[in-house]
Amino acid sequence: MLEATLAAIRPLDGAAMAAARWLQARLTKPPGSLGMLEELSIRLAGLAGTCPPPVPQPATVAVFAGDHGVHAQGVTPWPQEVTAQMVANFLDGGAVINAFARQTGASLTVVDVGVANPLKPVRGLVAANVRAGTRDLTVEAALTDDEVVAAVEVGIRVAGDLVDRGENMLVTGDMGIANSTPAAALIAAFTGTDPADATGRGTGVDDATYAHKVSVVRAALDLHRPDPADPIAVLGAVGGLEHAALAGLILGAAAARVPVILDGVVSVSAALAAAALAPDAIGAMVAGHRSVEPGASAALRHLGLDPLLDLGLRLGEGTGAMLAVPIVAAAVRVLHDVATFDSAGVSEQ
Amino acid sequence: MLEATLAAIRPLDGAAMAAARWLQARLTKPPGSLGMLEELSIRLAGLAGTCPPPVPQPATVAVFAGDHGVHAQGVTPWPQEVTAQMVANFLDGGAVINAFARQTGASLTVVDVGVANPLKPVRGLVAANVRAGTRDLTVEAALTDDEVVAAVEVGIRVAGDLVDRGENMLVTGDMGIANSTPAAALIAAFTGTDPADATGRGTGVDDATYAHKVSVVRAALDLHRPDPADPIAVLGAVGGLEHAALAGLILGAAAARVPVILDGVVSVSAALAAAALAPDAIGAMVAGHRSVEPGASAALRHLGLDPLLDLGLRLGEGTGAMLAVPIVAAAVRVLHDVATFDSAGVSEQ
Repeated sequence: MLEATLAAIRPLDGAAMAAARWLQARLTKPPGSLGMLEELSIRLAGLAGTCPPPVPQPATVAVFAGDHGVHAQGVTPWPQEVTAQMVANFLDGGAVINAFARQTGASLTVVDVGVANPLKPVRGLVAANVRAGTRDLTVEAALTDDEVVAAVEVGIRVAGDLVDRGENMLVTGDMGIANSTPAAALIAAFTGTDPADATGRGTGVDDATYAHKVSVVRAALDLHRPDPADPIAVLGAVGGLEHAALAGLILGAAAARVPVILDGVVSVSAALAAAALAPDAIGAMVAGHRSVEPGASAALRHLGLDPLLDLGLRLGEGTGAMLAVPIVAAAVRVLHDVATFDSAGVSEQ
Repeated sequence: MLEATLAAIRPLDGAAMAAARWLQARLTKPPGSLGMLEELSIRLAGLAGTCPPPVPQPATVAVFAGDHGVHAQGVTPWPQEVTAQMVANFLDGGAVINAFARQTGASLTVVDVGVANPLKPVRGLVAANVRAGTRDLTVEAALTDDEVVAAVEVGIRVAGDLVDRGENMLVTGDMGIANSTPAAALIAAFTGTDPADATGRGTGVDDATYAHKVSVVRAALDLHRPDPADPIAVLGAVGGLEHAALAGLILGAAAARVPVILDGVVSVSAALAAAALAPDAIGAMVAGHRSVEPGASAALRHLGLDPLLDLGLRLGEGTGAMLAVPIVAAAVRVLHDVATFDSAGVSEQ
């Protein structure tokens, strides 16, 4: 399934992009006056292969949850059980991502791809647990190659199911106590950024824990020396199950030529893996926001993506990406709704 | 009416803000992880005087249109008739602000406060023309004090009508060929910024026109030497009818304790006038976005406001502010919808 997905990912359609660029110059507004939104609309036309591209429907956020063996190293003050508790909170509608999705008219798909504590089968939970949390990446590889591929394929399958039911814009979300540590390691491995610059304070750790977290990331890289040319091996050495599944979701979206809005540091670390597996997948990616995490900025630079929002968020769950959904939709809607100078009888300069 | 409005503007409610701050710390997310949105929600609680404040309804954008005598000085390549043509485009639903309002579920109120070319009375157009465009501010004062007050009161009346019909969030919009020139002059006058730093390229002028535009702003300030302590006189000397009306809209919103989302350089220049008339009006202001115009950043700094978006827009019409509407609503919705650690049974760090 992974191979078939990678083979289906193609470059953006130049003709559709040229048509969108031409149309942007004819609409009743000064050329270029919509800044980043003009470029975004052109890129989404190239992704859809038609101009105008479809207006994104309210969208759906896929939140992948997993746990991490590296939690044992004390990289976060939060107990591991919070991952499962927050999954329950998502399903009860009580988390920030639920509030944001409600505001946006979007839906939520919650996927257990690797939570350590067994979850009750509840309506709305996609049960796809590959393993009850990763191994401790400071001691051994977090995942085997087979486990990585299984998790990536969970993400591909979720993307396919969502597109099949009519979703035309996906949003990445994550939940996993300690998951900003593997995210930092993935970013360091794929971009060559020093661990001190790739690692952030996650949900908010103190100075001592932060210094320890950097040393944990550095030790993991020294132990595994992951080769960025082998993305599956990198995900296995220092990644996480939700990171691998998010890479799969992104690849699935790219194969279906549907835009995928990236959330914060965990999502963009997964996006690096997706881009390493299929560079043309970058064409489907929209950077929803700039997380406070320094690693997120390093990853976005590496991917060549400018984020739409910069609100000082560091929550994950898909929250920053969800806030960008109406902006992406507005950018596309311009190509559908706005009159041209000719049609509106407006004089030009 | 202006005096009564100014007298009704009061500081934010400290008790409601404290309640919102306390609640933010109890919600199921790491404290501070929503960045700017937490501070925004606290401020809006203070404005409403209750926690949680009401979730903003889809909102309405009030677009004030006016023309400018300074157009004769060649500060823009666009013909003056475009102001009236774009008003017709707004009423036909074909402009970018229409597309963005549709995307947001918001409505549009178009107000002729000073268009030069007579407009046909059309359904949806608020006819409140104070004068058919301003005088040329390089030669004489653009407006008399009475004209300024009349235009400010148009804005106050529009705000009152919208609040009376149930709107609980207003958005500022403008249309007026050449109106970034008086905006730059207002910003220079109220903030002390040099005209070269307050003036931008508006809808996009070439280098020669830009240099001329800066010299026009500088000449106007040298001629009138407006006193920032007398905001009505500043608006009269170098302002515009839509700028004055927008100041009125902002004051009306502040008096009604309803948030008002500021658009680009014309709106923030009007916000400076509103703040000079009633400093507590700043409490009702939300900076929707950072326009490309350098004067907009100078004005926001002076007001102490951080913009929510920075997308490289330079269109006006209320477009940048409209894109911020769902984000403001999401920030408030957190206080309504998100579970606390206790209620959701989530462990704390």
